[in-house]
Amino acid sequence: MMRTVGILGGGQLARMLAMAAVPLGVRVLVLDTSGDACAGEVATLIEADYTDEAALAEFADLVDVVTFDFENVPASSAEWLAQRVPVFPNPGALATVQDRLSEKTLFSDLGLATPEFAAVDTREDLEAAVARIGLPAVLKTRRLGYDGKGQARLRQAADLDIGWQALGAGRVPLILEAFVPFQRELSVVAVRSREGELRTWPLTRNWHENGILSLSVSPIPVDDDLADQATRFARRVAERLDYVGVFALELFEHDGRLLGNEMAPRVHNSGHWTIEGAHSSQFENHLRAVLGLPLGDTAGRGASAMLNFIGQLPDLATALTIPGLHWHDYGKQPREGRKVGHATLCTQDLRSLHRRLGEAASAFAHPAWAPAATELGL
Amino acid sequence: MMRTVGILGGGQLARMLAMAAVPLGVRVLVLDTSGDACAGEVATLIEADYTDEAALAEFADLVDVVTFDFENVPASSAEWLAQRVPVFPNPGALATVQDRLSEKTLFSDLGLATPEFAAVDTREDLEAAVARIGLPAVLKTRRLGYDGKGQARLRQAADLDIGWQALGAGRVPLILEAFVPFQRELSVVAVRSREGELRTWPLTRNWHENGILSLSVSPIPVDDDLADQATRFARRVAERLDYVGVFALELFEHDGRLLGNEMAPRVHNSGHWTIEGAHSSQFENHLRAVLGLPLGDTAGRGASAMLNFIGQLPDLATALTIPGLHWHDYGKQPREGRKVGHATLCTQDLRSLHRRLGEAASAFAHPAWAPAATELGL
Repeated sequence: MMRTVGILGGGQLARMLAMAAVPLGVRVLVLDTSGDACAGEVATLIEADYTDEAALAEFADLVDVVTFDFENVPASSAEWLAQRVPVFPNPGALATVQDRLSEKTLFSDLGLATPEFAAVDTREDLEAAVARIGLPAVLKTRRLGYDGKGQARLRQAADLDIGWQALGAGRVPLILEAFVPFQRELSVVAVRSREGELRTWPLTRNWHENGILSLSVSPIPVDDDLADQATRFARRVAERLDYVGVFALELFEHDGRLLGNEMAPRVHNSGHWTIEGAHSSQFENHLRAVLGLPLGDTAGRGASAMLNFIGQLPDLATALTIPGLHWHDYGKQPREGRKVGHATLCTQDLRSLHRRLGEAASAFAHPAWAPAATELGL
Repeated sequence: MMRTVGILGGGQLARMLAMAAVPLGVRVLVLDTSGDACAGEVATLIEADYTDEAALAEFADLVDVVTFDFENVPASSAEWLAQRVPVFPNPGALATVQDRLSEKTLFSDLGLATPEFAAVDTREDLEAAVARIGLPAVLKTRRLGYDGKGQARLRQAADLDIGWQALGAGRVPLILEAFVPFQRELSVVAVRSREGELRTWPLTRNWHENGILSLSVSPIPVDDDLADQATRFARRVAERLDYVGVFALELFEHDGRLLGNEMAPRVHNSGHWTIEGAHSSQFENHLRAVLGLPLGDTAGRGASAMLNFIGQLPDLATALTIPGLHWHDYGKQPREGRKVGHATLCTQDLRSLHRRLGEAASAFAHPAWAPAATELGL
C-alpha cells in the first residue's frame, strides 16, 4: 500500500523530506505558492496559494496525511485541511507557535524560563515594556519572523522610534524580549509519534551570522542535568500541544540555566546534520511519525558539523576534497541571504571534528566555521 | 553549472544513483526499454531500445557523461555514444567483462587465479572441457547471465545433455567452469577516478540463495595479506581496462587463496550497504568518478549487513521496529525472483551486528539471515 504525504511549502525542507520518502516507498506531493520551489525537482508540485480552497481540496484528495515545510501557512488553511485528512502537527499546535507571544507564554506556563517578554501593540506598550524589561532588548513581530527578519535590536532610548517604525508602527502585533547575553545557543531536535513516544537527537550547538544559522555542531559536552532539562522541556511542550512529528526547541544557555527562545514546528536547520550524523535523520523520523510508523534510532554516529551556505554555493570540487564532507545543493538560484545549500562534516569524535572544521574554514575562506577548541568543550 | 549524468538502464541501481545525484546538484537522465523502470520515479526517463539511434542521439545531446545501470547494453551502442559524449566505464572495458571468457582470460593474464575454465561452442568442446576440468562443474552462457540465470550445474555425466539443451545446445557461446567448494565468497567494491586514483571499500562477504545475492556483511575479518591481494587485483584489473567509476570484483576464497569469479562493471548489490555503512556510498562515488570530481572517503562506519528482499517486501512497520535498520523500497511490483528492495543494518561492531542479524532473521522469518558467530569471525 503506497502512502502519500502532502507537504505545504516546497523549500529545501520539503526537498529533503521527499528524499527521505523515496527509500520508504512513500510518495510526496508538495503544495507551494511558487512553481519553481526546489522540492519540485524531487516531488510532484501543485502551484497554488495556501488559501486556495479548490487547490487545497485537490491536495487533500490525493494525500494520506498533511504536514509542513513552512510553519506560516494560515492556521485557517491547516484547520480546513484537518477536517478532510489527518494533519500533523495539528493546527492548534501550529497556531500556538506561529505567535511569539502565545509560544513564550506556553513556555512560561510549562516552567521553561524565557527571556523577559511583553506584548507590544501600541507605542505606549513599547514604552512600558522597555521601562519594565530594560535595554538592550529585541523588538520582534509576533508572527512571520524567520532568519532574523522582523526583528530590531534596541540598544538605547533613541532606538525605540527606529525599531517601532521598522516593524510597522503598530500595524502588526509585536513583542519585546529582553536581550540575553547567552553563553551558548543550543537546540534540542525531537520527534513525537502518534502514540506519544518522544525521542530526541543529541543536543546541538548553533552559531548564527547576521541572524541566520551558520554552523551547528553535535554532540556538545553538556552537564547531564542540562541535557535532561532540555529533553524534559521538549517533552512537556510536545505533550501539551499533542504534537506529532519533528520539532526543534531553541534554547539559550545563560548562567547555567536554559531559557526557551522559540520552537520550530517542523524539521529544522539545526537538525540537518542528522542525515549523515545520526542513525535515523530528522527527515525520515518526521515521515515515520506522521505516517504512524515506528520511530527510528536518534542516536548520533560520531561527531557532526553542519555548515550553511548562504547566498551562493562554494566551489563543489574544492569542497569534495575535504574528507568526510557531505554536500547538499538545494537546487536554488543564488540570492543574497538565501539558504542555497549546506555541507555536513562527520568525524569519529569532537577532537577530529575540530581539526576538520579548521580545514573546512580555510578551504571555504570562512574563518567563523572554525570555533576555538574551548568553544567545542575540548 | 548544472551537470547531467545519463544512465543506460533504469532499475534500482539507476534509482539509487539518481538519489545520490540530488544533493550533489547533479541531474540524472535515464534511458530504459521500459517506461515503468523504477528509476523513473526519481529521474527523467526516456523509453527507448538501447539500439534506437534517434533516441541515443537525443540522449547524448542532453547529458554531459554516460554511464550504466545495466552492463548488457550492446557494446556497439556504448561505442556509438562514446563518439559523441564521454562514456564511463569505457565501451572496451564493458565489452571485455560482458563475456565470461574474455573476463576470465583477463583475470588469468593479470595473475588472478580463477576456477579452471574452457570455452564451449560445440557438444565436442563440452566433452573435452569436462574431460580436462572434471565434475562437478558449471556450464554458463558467456553473455547476459545474472542472478544465477544462464547457468547449469553438471554433477555427473548424465547432466551434460541436460545442461547442453538447457543453455541453447550451441546457439549461444558457453563456458565451462570448475566447481569450487569455496569457504567464503567475497567482493571488493572499488572506485577509480578519471585521474586513475583507486579507492576500495572494506571487503564484503556475500551469501547467495537460489543464485541470487541474499546477504552481504562488511567488514569481515580477513588476513591483511588477503585484503591486500584483493585490492591489488582490483587495481590491476581497473588499470588494464582504464576503468573509470565503481566496479565490484567477486572472489572465491578457497584454501587461503583468492579466485576471480566475475567483475560487475557498475555499482553492485554487494555495495548497497555503503549508503549508510561508509562515509561515501558507492553511488555517490560513482557519480564523483564519472564527473571528474574528487573521490569521497570509502572508509566504513561500524559494521553493516545488507538483506535483499526478493519477490516481495516484508511488512514495513515490523521492519522499522528493528533498531539501526534502513529500508530501501525500489518501487517495483512484486514478482518471483525479482529484487524489490533491501534493508541495511548498521551497528557499532560485528558482535552487535551478529545479535541484530539474529533479531532481523526472526522478525522476517528468514533464518538464513542469521549466520553463525563463527561465520562472521567472532
